[in-house]
Amino acid sequence: MKNYILILIFIFFIAGESFSQLVRKDMVVPDIPGYVTLKCDFHIHTVFSDGNVWPTVRVEEAWLLGYDAISITDHIEYQPHKKYIPVQHNAGYEIAKPQGDRQDMIVIQGSEITRVMPPGHLNAIFIKDAKRIETERIGHMHSAETHTHGYLDSIDHHHQDYMMAIKEAVDQGGFVFWNHPGWEPQAPDGIKMYDVHKDLIGKGWLKGIEVANWDTWYPEAFQWCLEYGLTMLSNSDIHQTEEIYEKITKVTRRPVTLVFAREKSEESIHEALADARTAVWFNDMVIGKEEFLEPLFSQSIAISQAFFTDNDRNRYYNLKNKSDFTIDLLPPDEDQVIELLPQSTVIISVKDNQGEIDYDVKNFLIGPDQSMRVKLSID
Amino acid sequence: MKNYILILIFIFFIAGESFSQLVRKDMVVPDIPGYVTLKCDFHIHTVFSDGNVWPTVRVEEAWLLGYDAISITDHIEYQPHKKYIPVQHNAGYEIAKPQGDRQDMIVIQGSEITRVMPPGHLNAIFIKDAKRIETERIGHMHSAETHTHGYLDSIDHHHQDYMMAIKEAVDQGGFVFWNHPGWEPQAPDGIKMYDVHKDLIGKGWLKGIEVANWDTWYPEAFQWCLEYGLTMLSNSDIHQTEEIYEKITKVTRRPVTLVFAREKSEESIHEALADARTAVWFNDMVIGKEEFLEPLFSQSIAISQAFFTDNDRNRYYNLKNKSDFTIDLLPPDEDQVIELLPQSTVIISVKDNQGEIDYDVKNFLIGPDQSMRVKLSID
Amino acid sequence: MKNYILILIFIFFIAGESFSQLVRKDMVVPDIPGYVTLKCDFHIHTVFSDGNVWPTVRVEEAWLLGYDAISITDHIEYQPHKKYIPVQHNAGYEIAKPQGDRQDMIVIQGSEITRVMPPGHLNAIFIKDAKRIETERIGHMHSAETHTHGYLDSIDHHHQDYMMAIKEAVDQGGFVFWNHPGWEPQAPDGIKMYDVHKDLIGKGWLKGIEVANWDTWYPEAFQWCLEYGLTMLSNSDIHQTEEIYEKITKVTRRPVTLVFAREKSEESIHEALADARTAVWFNDMVIGKEEFLEPLFSQSIAISQAFFTDNDRNRYYNLKNKSDFTIDLLPPDEDQVIELLPQSTVIISVKDNQGEIDYDVKNFLIGPDQSMRVKLSID
Amino acid sequence: MKNYILILIFIFFIAGESFSQLVRKDMVVPDIPGYVTLKCDFHIHTVFSDGNVWPTVRVEEAWLLGYDAISITDHIEYQPHKKYIPVQHNAGYEIAKPQGDRQDMIVIQGSEITRVMPPGHLNAIFIKDAKRIETERIGHMHSAETHTHGYLDSIDHHHQDYMMAIKEAVDQGGFVFWNHPGWEPQAPDGIKMYDVHKDLIGKGWLKGIEVANWDTWYPEAFQWCLEYGLTMLSNSDIHQTEEIYEKITKVTRRPVTLVFAREKSEESIHEALADARTAVWFNDMVIGKEEFLEPLFSQSIAISQAFFTDNDRNRYYNLKNKSDFTIDLLPPDEDQVIELLPQSTVIISVKDNQGEIDYDVKNFLIGPDQSMRVKLSID
Repeated sequence: MKNYILILIFIFFIAGESFSQLVRKDMVVPDIPGYVTLKCDFHIHTVFSDGNVWPTVRVEEAWLLGYDAISITDHIEYQPHKKYIPVQHNAGYEIAKPQGDRQDMIVIQGSEITRVMPPGHLNAIFIKDAKRIETERIGHMHSAETHTHGYLDSIDHHHQDYMMAIKEAVDQGGFVFWNHPGWEPQAPDGIKMYDVHKDLIGKGWLKGIEVANWDTWYPEAFQWCLEYGLTMLSNSDIHQTEEIYEKITKVTRRPVTLVFAREKSEESIHEALADARTAVWFNDMVIGKEEFLEPLFSQSIAISQAFFTDNDRNRYYNLKNKSDFTIDLLPPDEDQVIELLPQSTVIISVKDNQGEIDYDVKNFLIGPDQSMRVKLSID
Repeated sequence: MKNYILILIFIFFIAGESFSQLVRKDMVVPDIPGYVTLKCDFHIHTVFSDGNVWPTVRVEEAWLLGYDAISITDHIEYQPHKKYIPVQHNAGYEIAKPQGDRQDMIVIQGSEITRVMPPGHLNAIFIKDAKRIETERIGHMHSAETHTHGYLDSIDHHHQDYMMAIKEAVDQGGFVFWNHPGWEPQAPDGIKMYDVHKDLIGKGWLKGIEVANWDTWYPEAFQWCLEYGLTMLSNSDIHQTEEIYEKITKVTRRPVTLVFAREKSEESIHEALADARTAVWFNDMVIGKEEFLEPLFSQSIAISQAFFTDNDRNRYYNLKNKSDFTIDLLPPDEDQVIELLPQSTVIISVKDNQGEIDYDVKNFLIGPDQSMRVKLSID
Repeated sequence: MKNYILILIFIFFIAGESFSQLVRKDMVVPDIPGYVTLKCDFHIHTVFSDGNVWPTVRVEEAWLLGYDAISITDHIEYQPHKKYIPVQHNAGYEIAKPQGDRQDMIVIQGSEITRVMPPGHLNAIFIKDAKRIETERIGHMHSAETHTHGYLDSIDHHHQDYMMAIKEAVDQGGFVFWNHPGWEPQAPDGIKMYDVHKDLIGKGWLKGIEVANWDTWYPEAFQWCLEYGLTMLSNSDIHQTEEIYEKITKVTRRPVTLVFAREKSEESIHEALADARTAVWFNDMVIGKEEFLEPLFSQSIAISQAFFTDNDRNRYYNLKNKSDFTIDLLPPDEDQVIELLPQSTVIISVKDNQGEIDYDVKNFLIGPDQSMRVKLSID
Repeated sequence: MKNYILILIFIFFIAGESFSQLVRKDMVVPDIPGYVTLKCDFHIHTVFSDGNVWPTVRVEEAWLLGYDAISITDHIEYQPHKKYIPVQHNAGYEIAKPQGDRQDMIVIQGSEITRVMPPGHLNAIFIKDAKRIETERIGHMHSAETHTHGYLDSIDHHHQDYMMAIKEAVDQGGFVFWNHPGWEPQAPDGIKMYDVHKDLIGKGWLKGIEVANWDTWYPEAFQWCLEYGLTMLSNSDIHQTEEIYEKITKVTRRPVTLVFAREKSEESIHEALADARTAVWFNDMVIGKEEFLEPLFSQSIAISQAFFTDNDRNRYYNLKNKSDFTIDLLPPDEDQVIELLPQSTVIISVKDNQGEIDYDVKNFLIGPDQSMRVKLSID
């Protein structure tokens, strides 16, 4: 009676296997001539640094929202869970990647190189091994704790040459960008670019900047991207669950980096980032170069004539927004914006002798203070 | 100082002029080969019979919901507001039409011929003059009041030859259909078709039946449409405001008659109705002939392969619903339906050796008890 | 067989009889010591002037939203529907009143005396017969039409002594107040009080002003109410259906006049208005005299200690908002507002040696530019 | 210049510290005479077994939903994350407890004893040290994997005497209950109680059963609780984030065990569980003994007369639901249920000679097939 054999048939819910019961709300953004438009978030945390969820959750959450690609970018140097979870820099990617495959979500390996300013925090994505980016500790290390806005802050920090870490990331083929350059705790006197950033840009090691992060966007960062030809990114930096992230930040939409890629693949995303083919979708704003915003706009809009002509010689047109963008149009010589909601139609009236209408698209920014102007031809 | 002249500059909100501030949520339904799919509601009431709103409101409400065409069909014989509003059978159309023009909503003239069963209530649409459809009262007339489900019932009724009324409608070029054939107050012992209906069908005067009305659909009516080659309709019969209609009926969607027309025009709708080119969209069900439901389905769906193949030799596919239909798929040999919500994607797994999948589309009915089967080819 | 007798059993949905199927979302506002707090809207239109719905709808809509009392106040002098509906100044009240009785909604008879500025538009409520308020036309009358923001404006206007109309309303026991004093079409150069208003106030004929109307509130009107001891009102001036009103105005809540009455009765409301016992609830703001706002606030809030004391010697408290007000609290020496949503709780931290906390309740205004300060004692 | 000293001031978002920006929607459930009604969930997983979130998230999620108390109950014997996270049975409680203190959420230490059926899965809560509940492995152990409904199943299992584990939990003062007794993978031939359960009940070691778990409730379990005097529980068994849990299960409300406690404290909850003073709130159903459901109902309802008496001698009453329960009332001799939504009012009509009304409260169950009957007195 001692050595009987149990046949155990246990059925368990295993983390990250639940997708077959989930339904994704598609994110409707038009492709532009020559490129597919991919929706990406390249800055995401898990329990393997200071985040609150298991890596598979990040795939599920992003999939539900309609993203095409994400990067898990846990801090290398900041590991507040290490009392319970041994430091494993590649774990987030290892766990998320198979889940991504099953959900057709591209998962890109990444890490956050986490230093005081300058250079601040940098993300390295498309890397091969995050462990090798962790540099040795040299000299004294001081840590300080401080409270800001209810966040408790504490960190182990290697003040050692971050250049070694960045070089290692670049040597692995990584794409490195500067995170939340105006983050108040690291920029208490306002956002600014340091010499080291210029140096890194000059070396070709730093190729992008987060123009939007968490619940904030940085007009100066947008300007720098335009000036230096850098890639613009718009990432969530999410630590909590999606639900709690939305409640805390009150964003109308989690940030999206729009990537104009030759096809939906990891390689094409890498190529597009290297080529600065991106735009920023943050809350209801779309920010980027006119060469990308103009086709995004024109592919989103359809115009058709309504039947009516009234006594004042107005014609009426249906202006339809096929996309999930909100589009705020300011007609010429008016001060009230027409807010064209996602996948909606408004009716506009046009004087009989007009052949086209100019609009100022107030929430499509092609410069820090410059909204895009468009002409809609009607006939 | 007595006869001074006032220059009055009054700015008023006038009923029905407000559309420029409104945004329409588009109703996304695919066209099918050879036809555009128009979304229509051919049974609507206003204050000019027993409805509660001014006719322009009906255009605005339908426009906000994404309809292409409506018909105002006030009762001819039932006029509970006549103490306050003189009987004017064409008023609803006269008032709604210019508003429809401005909003690119096709407004079709109609009336509800309102009799005891048989023949019950009949809508005549595409008529020219509703006044001429009002017939003389002949003989005795009794009215009764009764309470049912908290509705107070009372009516002036002409028991006179309704044939004259129908003939007049037909002579005007009208399209006549039978409303809510199983409406409990007129069918307390269950829905049935009377000889008079067969007679009217035989004469070519009665060409359609409401398969869905208000918050109910009638499988028998669907069967009759299939048998007699009649046009299937799905109408709201709305009396209240849209908001209160939704609260009372708890429908997930106001009924839509899907009309497969050569183009978006009143004439094409008339032609399509005469040719029985319609389907019924009621709550989350789509009901009609397979020749229309099959292309509706296939134009709504896109399928694409995900990257992954797991150890059990499954491949994974993205199944995307581009439409606003909900699509309930039952895979072969399973008992759990996949509910594919509007504009959403689910992930399905497929055995490696499968070249196509059969689904039973549980909420697409091609017979009263028969859901549509589809094959999705994957490769 | 010709003169047979039909027994007609017709069951109809009759306008306004549907309430038994409807469920009201209660509006949760605390009573204050000595008074019940009634939620009222004293400015509402129907098809009997330039509104778009039948009067019973106004009772249903207000009931669904949780109002206690409404007044139907159709224009006397502006009747754009008269081509179809004969002028009947008392019809709105006659039709709405029985519906109100069944739904426990107090319906108060009213009319809008509709003139150019000055005196502009005035509402007279608690009147007996609106017909007698219509004054004779004297002298020349000019009307002008103009377009503004897509509204077509047109009016028959009696330039005759409006004093006669107001006097008649007052003689009937009516309570007269000035509507939307800063309405742009009548105040293109900004809101101002004319001599005639001061005269009417001096006579005791004009007793209140709309501090909020439609989608706007008027700080100057609030100041005048404080200076002259007038009654503050907050009314919707709704013309469309509730749903379309909400879409056009984008208000977060239809305006509510909070009336502090001895009991829920028409008489008590009249007495409270005459005694200026009201406050304004408009969007997320509460506006009025501190004697009313202070108890509204304190009856809405409950505070209880949480368990925890952390190392920084903070205690934690649950701050609970039992009402449907949003309450925006600015703690001392901070610049970030705590937004306490309806029927919600936030957690606040308090230094150990504090016995009470001061808050600036940013959205409770006791002067045009003055938010209410409160002290919460904690122990 | 090599050994300079960095003063690092790093500000980080640390898991679980974000509550000050969050607002809780209160869950409105009345207290009953003699007891406060606490809202609890005693079955919750984290990354420390097969759950997907960090323990602090469980406090935040429960707090946002309005719970008063939770228990973290990770599997002792099932540790699919052990490749990355070393087994630490008390970690979930250790991490969640301080967060609970700050948010006034009672966090109770617990564990899930995880065996094949019988006895199946058992939760032990109010324990002191989960490590000591882990029993030694004896004899051979086989594990099997199987797929069911897309879940991958795999487990290390100790077939050893689970009696030792349960005894240890009881010796620690723990309260032990049987989880999801009808869970299909462990009850493929239907729910049934085994001799071992009767034995455990007889010993006084097993004191409760989950009547509701995840997305299912078990009428048989309800019957057993009534027969054996056991405590009824209603728990979520949540593994994912709250958002994904809701999407997968489609529950209208996460399960709540209503605990009737002398005060809000851990001790009072323990005492109430031991005394079987609980009820089950699952989707829109409330399930339990009439002695608790009757006062829950009567404390939720307020009735007040409306003004009107119509010609049919009906009086009208406002029936108000002050709670967050949905209450489905079936009037005598009718077949249509009145659905009284949370914090809502309906109007009912009553014959003049009636002094009270009987209702069948269809969704308040006092037996597996028995809804509660109530009398409302009106006067």
